[in-house]
Amino acid sequence: MLVSALLMSVGINSCLCVLLFILYSVLRKQPHNYEVFLPRRLVAGTSKRRRNKVARYIPSVRWIWKSFKPSEQQLMESSGLDGVVFMRMITFSLKVFLFAGIIGVFVLLPVNCFGDQLIQIDYADWSANSLDLFSVANLKIRSKWLWVHFGAIYLVTAFVCCLLYLEFRYIGLKRIEHFHSSKPQPQQFTILVRNVPSSDGSSVSDTVDKFFRENHSSTYMSHVVIHRTSKLRSIVDNAKKLYKKVKQKKPEHGQVRKPPMRFFSRKDTPEGHYEKVLQEMEHNIRLGQAEVSSPGKEVRAAFVSFESRYGAAMALHMPQSINPTYWLTEPAPEPHDVHWPFFSASFMQKWLAKIVIVFACLLLTVLFLVPVVLVQGLTNLSALEYFFPFLTLILSMKIVSQIITGYLPSLILQTSLKIVPPIMEFLSSIQGHICHSDIQKSACNKVIWFTIWNVFFATVFSGSAFYKLSVILDPKEILVKLAVAVPAQASFFIAYVVTTGWTDTLTELFRVVPFMVSYVKRSLEPTEEDNELEVPPMRYHRDTPRVLFFGLLGITYFFLAPLILPFILLYFVLAYIIYRNQFINVYEPKYDTGGMFWPMIHYTMIFSLVLMHAIAIGLFALKKMELATYLLVPLPVFTLLFNEFCRKRFMPIFTAYPAEVLTKRDKEDQIDPRMSEFYSKLVTAYQDPALLPLRFNSLSGSNSLTSPLLSSSEV
Amino acid sequence: MLVSALLMSVGINSCLCVLLFILYSVLRKQPHNYEVFLPRRLVAGTSKRRRNKVARYIPSVRWIWKSFKPSEQQLMESSGLDGVVFMRMITFSLKVFLFAGIIGVFVLLPVNCFGDQLIQIDYADWSANSLDLFSVANLKIRSKWLWVHFGAIYLVTAFVCCLLYLEFRYIGLKRIEHFHSSKPQPQQFTILVRNVPSSDGSSVSDTVDKFFRENHSSTYMSHVVIHRTSKLRSIVDNAKKLYKKVKQKKPEHGQVRKPPMRFFSRKDTPEGHYEKVLQEMEHNIRLGQAEVSSPGKEVRAAFVSFESRYGAAMALHMPQSINPTYWLTEPAPEPHDVHWPFFSASFMQKWLAKIVIVFACLLLTVLFLVPVVLVQGLTNLSALEYFFPFLTLILSMKIVSQIITGYLPSLILQTSLKIVPPIMEFLSSIQGHICHSDIQKSACNKVIWFTIWNVFFATVFSGSAFYKLSVILDPKEILVKLAVAVPAQASFFIAYVVTTGWTDTLTELFRVVPFMVSYVKRSLEPTEEDNELEVPPMRYHRDTPRVLFFGLLGITYFFLAPLILPFILLYFVLAYIIYRNQFINVYEPKYDTGGMFWPMIHYTMIFSLVLMHAIAIGLFALKKMELATYLLVPLPVFTLLFNEFCRKRFMPIFTAYPAEVLTKRDKEDQIDPRMSEFYSKLVTAYQDPALLPLRFNSLSGSNSLTSPLLSSSEV
Repeated sequence: MLVSALLMSVGINSCLCVLLFILYSVLRKQPHNYEVFLPRRLVAGTSKRRRNKVARYIPSVRWIWKSFKPSEQQLMESSGLDGVVFMRMITFSLKVFLFAGIIGVFVLLPVNCFGDQLIQIDYADWSANSLDLFSVANLKIRSKWLWVHFGAIYLVTAFVCCLLYLEFRYIGLKRIEHFHSSKPQPQQFTILVRNVPSSDGSSVSDTVDKFFRENHSSTYMSHVVIHRTSKLRSIVDNAKKLYKKVKQKKPEHGQVRKPPMRFFSRKDTPEGHYEKVLQEMEHNIRLGQAEVSSPGKEVRAAFVSFESRYGAAMALHMPQSINPTYWLTEPAPEPHDVHWPFFSASFMQKWLAKIVIVFACLLLTVLFLVPVVLVQGLTNLSALEYFFPFLTLILSMKIVSQIITGYLPSLILQTSLKIVPPIMEFLSSIQGHICHSDIQKSACNKVIWFTIWNVFFATVFSGSAFYKLSVILDPKEILVKLAVAVPAQASFFIAYVVTTGWTDTLTELFRVVPFMVSYVKRSLEPTEEDNELEVPPMRYHRDTPRVLFFGLLGITYFFLAPLILPFILLYFVLAYIIYRNQFINVYEPKYDTGGMFWPMIHYTMIFSLVLMHAIAIGLFALKKMELATYLLVPLPVFTLLFNEFCRKRFMPIFTAYPAEVLTKRDKEDQIDPRMSEFYSKLVTAYQDPALLPLRFNSLSGSNSLTSPLLSSSEV
Repeated sequence: MLVSALLMSVGINSCLCVLLFILYSVLRKQPHNYEVFLPRRLVAGTSKRRRNKVARYIPSVRWIWKSFKPSEQQLMESSGLDGVVFMRMITFSLKVFLFAGIIGVFVLLPVNCFGDQLIQIDYADWSANSLDLFSVANLKIRSKWLWVHFGAIYLVTAFVCCLLYLEFRYIGLKRIEHFHSSKPQPQQFTILVRNVPSSDGSSVSDTVDKFFRENHSSTYMSHVVIHRTSKLRSIVDNAKKLYKKVKQKKPEHGQVRKPPMRFFSRKDTPEGHYEKVLQEMEHNIRLGQAEVSSPGKEVRAAFVSFESRYGAAMALHMPQSINPTYWLTEPAPEPHDVHWPFFSASFMQKWLAKIVIVFACLLLTVLFLVPVVLVQGLTNLSALEYFFPFLTLILSMKIVSQIITGYLPSLILQTSLKIVPPIMEFLSSIQGHICHSDIQKSACNKVIWFTIWNVFFATVFSGSAFYKLSVILDPKEILVKLAVAVPAQASFFIAYVVTTGWTDTLTELFRVVPFMVSYVKRSLEPTEEDNELEVPPMRYHRDTPRVLFFGLLGITYFFLAPLILPFILLYFVLAYIIYRNQFINVYEPKYDTGGMFWPMIHYTMIFSLVLMHAIAIGLFALKKMELATYLLVPLPVFTLLFNEFCRKRFMPIFTAYPAEVLTKRDKEDQIDPRMSEFYSKLVTAYQDPALLPLRFNSLSGSNSLTSPLLSSSEV
């Protein structure tokens, strides 16, 4: 790749960025777009739909400055600890690449330029130089300048490790602080017990009650046994959908509904028929609920609540039974975070699901590229001309063909990558996690490794003869091969950061799919206001891997091609602005993992560092710097030891709260008069939603829960 | 090795065994040997010194039958759970080798004999056949008879795994049963806390008290902070030694001492001088105790006692502090099991000691054979003749030279192996374990791997070109090399079992060193009765590895050379008789690990099985049985999975008692009136012996603990 090509790409994409920024700043001020761009503020009531002002057609930059405004405390309040962790990941990357960028651009880049391994720099025409001139490839074998790179690697590793340590400690403390400042919450007082042993004659409920009354008598309070409700749940879900449909078409009591403009006439919606069906369903649900509540439908698991956090922790940490495969305890998730369907599965189903999914993920990760590469193959010019003969004329234009061959393949790859997070989320959801936040975490982990494998390694492998399996068996050979293959892809990844990184993050700002949906809706029923405005939940498992991947790229290429650093830095600046904005205005946390994303981020960073070291060792061996090669070996070892230390030092805070924190909170509660109210709520907090009484009565006007849902007089 | 040679060896060793049995049965009945052969019964008072009977010069076999008599319950009472576990290891081996022996001798041995890979069997002169004819080496390549071996391997693996599962479960339940039936013991109510954080201005004692009063207020009772007492301890030890010396030479009050016959006159023991020194020492000790008790000499560790077992377990299992490197909890050992010196070491000292010792052990294990082989080299005839010319005549006799070349090298190896357990015990003692039983366990583990490496692998390696390091890198090659090298050593190990196994165990019966010491003592002071009869403590870490090693040999050679099985079986019969006897009469448990030796035994058995599988895979590959080779691969995998299952299923019982067991015992205690007495003892149970008031007063006749130890009026 030549400097001119890079400059053109940077130019195009910078213009695109500015254009998109301007477009967004106008679009977001249109009232009918509020529900797409500002749903959170709309629901919270902090933003009103202003109409008919000229100002809303003039682009502004105030929203950019606004996104810098909220403090971390405010972010914590609005987006939870997960939001804080996500933003700290971006500021962490900013710090790292500011430091690495200064070293890279002002020290390593000049050193590389003045090497003379490749042809001399053409000072007359800068843009005609190859990008390789700026990379470490330009240094001669046994060049003394390589020691500068050696020092830079040590320096940056030390800097990143220090920062990682400080961040891990900070987030650990934030977790404790968050716990201290939080209201009493059901999950703090509750544990989940699984594998309750079966005892003849008594129900699971009795067994649980007897066991905890005997062994944890001082703190045990109540329990909720889980029931097999998968069939009932599908009936309830259908009924709810139907109810929503019927309700939308019926006016509220005492309110005269003006007939909306619609494409379908009223005859198409036989409301009477619907309501009869609803009535029938509701009857079925009552019957089903009664049937499910019988001991025969009990799952051998229960949520057990205690009088204090200390009591719950005690039961959580202590081995319970002589047979350690019974009475397995684990922390309870938040009540609305529970993933109920999973409890219904039998042990064998769970076990099989787990194995199948692990294989499915591996297969997807390894084989994903095959169809994508095939489709990409279609984008070369001759294939296009063969399938679409009428395009021949357009394709013969030089700029069009350049754009098609340059952009289309990476666009296809990027689009296909977009479908991966939902797939991974689905796979994680049937893998056996008992709560949504665990599913998110697991999906995030899967997507991280998927991205690293399918973008980083696949690019590196395909660019060299690396894929020969025989190479894998010789560990020393791998490093040298990596050192050859990874730098060769430097210019590809620089272009990748500029094209995909910048614009892809910006398109996130536009929420393209919701925007289109809202546009289509308005064109269908232009006057109807949307009654139920839904604030979309945060989806860290989709965004975290992408951000982390650019961090990995930056660290890996830090000394190989320092030219990448300013672009990575710019990417993180963009990401900072945009994500602080997808948090304040749009997304809302549905449940909090309590900062559990940080260990994942930490491990990915450590992986990036060790990958960089491995490539460095291979490169120094290639450049015949024996001493430097041996002196580099301790670096990954120390990095891994540091990782182990961090794991020992901080991970316990992320798995369970320590006794001193629990007792402090418990003591504060003792003097709180609101606790008795909390306890009465706690008893029913973990009720399966499928077993809750139905509340369709606003439609029929009847308040009684025992009477039929839709009384015949109303219909 | 020829059959004749084996028969001769078996004959000699059988005669030796019978002879030793007869000798022992006479020696043990001599009253002056009681303290060597029956110290335990002597102390317990169940055996009196009978004199002047003719019967005691007639050999008898009653003691052999007697050793079969005690039930497991009695063994548990007299030798603790460790004794039971040790004996179950031997009965387990008996069961395994009875089963394997029947298959080996009646199925595999005939199959091997009728193979025709080597020369035909010489039916006329059986004893002239090579032992190899009875091994699997006699089967041709692709022989269909190998499938019999294949089946036998699967069968024996399944049998051993079943037995291992049953034993693990049995011992786990015994552990629980033992806990249920035991009296309240201090270690059940106590935990050890380490890394107490330093807080300005307050002592460690105050910090511990405050922390547990705050966080475990409902069950916390008391604590004992550990002090740095290494210097004081050496003074106390010296004083005790001196006191013993002085006391032995001074008559009891009111008892006229008859002057003993002695080689040293009374002038040599200036008692007055000694007592002055003692007086001085005692003063120093008082000063030292006062000094050590000050906060400045506190170690950042404490024994913390709770009101219930449940309370102690709670504090043990819960993470305590926001900083997980502080307030580390672990189960407290029995009070007299505590290894006090170790607490005095600083963190850096401990850390360095640990690293140094790991390296020392590795070095000792790997390099042990070098000096032994050198010394063994001296035992060849020409070397002996060179160094001791006067022996030439004797050495020229054929039988003498045969014995010297045949027995001497293995005798030297065996004698050098005897010094290993004390070395390993010493290394373990400075490694950082806080109690003697942990030191024993750790030493046992070290000796097991030492034996496996230095006897098994060293023999196998030295017998082949196996030691080339390059082979190690190719895992497939290793198996084939093993399959060549291990069977080649079959006849050596058969001879090893017959010679070393049988007689070595028998010499244990004679307690050679204590016997010699007692003999020398009696010849010096023949009329003096030994005032303080010491019952020697059990030393499982010395005996367990030896027994396990023969188990390993038996399992490894099971299908390679089934001829070894009857000899191994006989070894275990001998071991059964002897160990049940050295338990009833001689040794006494000083502390109980609660059956913690079993997991070690379990893992060693699993290792033996996998080793056998590895050799079998190599052998079947050598014999070109492709199908059988591939069908064998799942076997080690399943064995390791089985091991993992056992670890998950049973290990938790060995690390901590579950809640249901603890609460049951606690409830029983609530109605026990003796508990208040127990609690008052518990408070001082974990007092450092160096800080206890001295009790030398019986010498001086004074009872006061505050008055000087030896009043001048007495001297």
